[in-house]
Amino acid sequence: MSEKVYGLHAVRALLSRHAERVSAVTVAEQRTDPRVAEILKLAAEAGKPVKRVAPTVFKQLFGEAIHQGVYAEVEPLTPWREEELLAALVEAAGKAPLVLVLDGVQDPHNLGACLRTADACGALAVVIPKDRAVQMTATVRKVAAGAAETTPIAVVTNLARTLRLLKEAGLWVVGADADAPKLAHETDLAGPIALVMGAEGSGLRQLTRETCDLTVRLPQQGAVESLNVSVATGMLLYEALRQRLAPAKPAKTGR
Amino acid sequence: MSEKVYGLHAVRALLSRHAERVSAVTVAEQRTDPRVAEILKLAAEAGKPVKRVAPTVFKQLFGEAIHQGVYAEVEPLTPWREEELLAALVEAAGKAPLVLVLDGVQDPHNLGACLRTADACGALAVVIPKDRAVQMTATVRKVAAGAAETTPIAVVTNLARTLRLLKEAGLWVVGADADAPKLAHETDLAGPIALVMGAEGSGLRQLTRETCDLTVRLPQQGAVESLNVSVATGMLLYEALRQRLAPAKPAKTGR
Repeated sequence: MSEKVYGLHAVRALLSRHAERVSAVTVAEQRTDPRVAEILKLAAEAGKPVKRVAPTVFKQLFGEAIHQGVYAEVEPLTPWREEELLAALVEAAGKAPLVLVLDGVQDPHNLGACLRTADACGALAVVIPKDRAVQMTATVRKVAAGAAETTPIAVVTNLARTLRLLKEAGLWVVGADADAPKLAHETDLAGPIALVMGAEGSGLRQLTRETCDLTVRLPQQGAVESLNVSVATGMLLYEALRQRLAPAKPAKTGR
Repeated sequence: MSEKVYGLHAVRALLSRHAERVSAVTVAEQRTDPRVAEILKLAAEAGKPVKRVAPTVFKQLFGEAIHQGVYAEVEPLTPWREEELLAALVEAAGKAPLVLVLDGVQDPHNLGACLRTADACGALAVVIPKDRAVQMTATVRKVAAGAAETTPIAVVTNLARTLRLLKEAGLWVVGADADAPKLAHETDLAGPIALVMGAEGSGLRQLTRETCDLTVRLPQQGAVESLNVSVATGMLLYEALRQRLAPAKPAKTGR
């Protein structure tokens, strides 16, 4: 079974980084620009077949999504177990890895949106518990718009245990909590961190909160009780990314 | 016709700021804590009836949402016309108003999520075009989780014209565009601004982009083409809010 991942950037990234998982590339008949030429070149180098189809085929497959007239058939990412997550952290040591942990998110749209955002923000992986949380489904993959094929999901049986192992691996475990004393932008999120988000409505479970090294909150100006979990995840991952892109505090040069 | 808005914070805000639109308050039988006492006091001062009902009623009405055992019956906000938006901007002059403009968002979940986020980030109003865009529906109100009753929607017939009027009212019109030369966090968003978001997939229309004073983009690290519009809106409104909360650049003191 394979998944269809569309879009110039996503297909180029898959061919460059994970060609072993790509079985074929399909391009709309009318596409001939340099960005498509680059994809054709990458596919040829990797020995992958390229099929040309009518643009209507894309419309049928992807509706109104921005497919840009190109998709790849990709072998789905196998979910990681805890060991694979920890091995990837060892490999990423020194690069300030960013891991997103979802403590019991229930809604497939929220999981898909979080996965897509995690991918866009350069997260190493997304960790979800095996029980009492939504798992990878077709809806999740669709909402994730290709991110499920590029950003690994680690499914763990005991989240508190995994968080302790992440700490031992050198990560700061940062929980999102509306009652946290500090705002996210007042907190250093530029280092190696695992950002832990609670479930819709109920927030972090007590054991999860207690396992966190620190908690942060987002500024709230309005009348509504709380943000949607995928929007709050977006804001916090954005804040972590912004801090990573900002010039280091003591030095004057960017990085 | 009235809408039910739940949650301690939202009901308190409605009773304090918009008591004239509240017709009644309902509290779960078991709730007696100080935050509920404050709501009972506000309701009494405003002469609003308070009903006590079994907790199961809340479960039936709101499912798993965090209703906190309190809701208010609220007269829905009448959508603003352009004149009311401009009048509100005159009133907010000097307070660096933040307006969210959605250029043709199609999906009711996205509009609802944007409205909720706009409310949380203290936006003055959300502007949507009358044509070729999703309008206020029951789904939008539900996803907005009360924000539709607290943050006004301005429905306009000619978006480019409205953007020009916003400029004349002293706002910087800032478009979100993946090809923008500058990143949001490198741009001053602390002043009076209208943030303009494009539709799902297609982005800003050409006329809208040309009407913007400037465009900004979000950092993108991953393989996926673009962020969901409600997540991108969340990140950009968060960035504007973060800059507003940050100490002013020349002075050393916070504000």
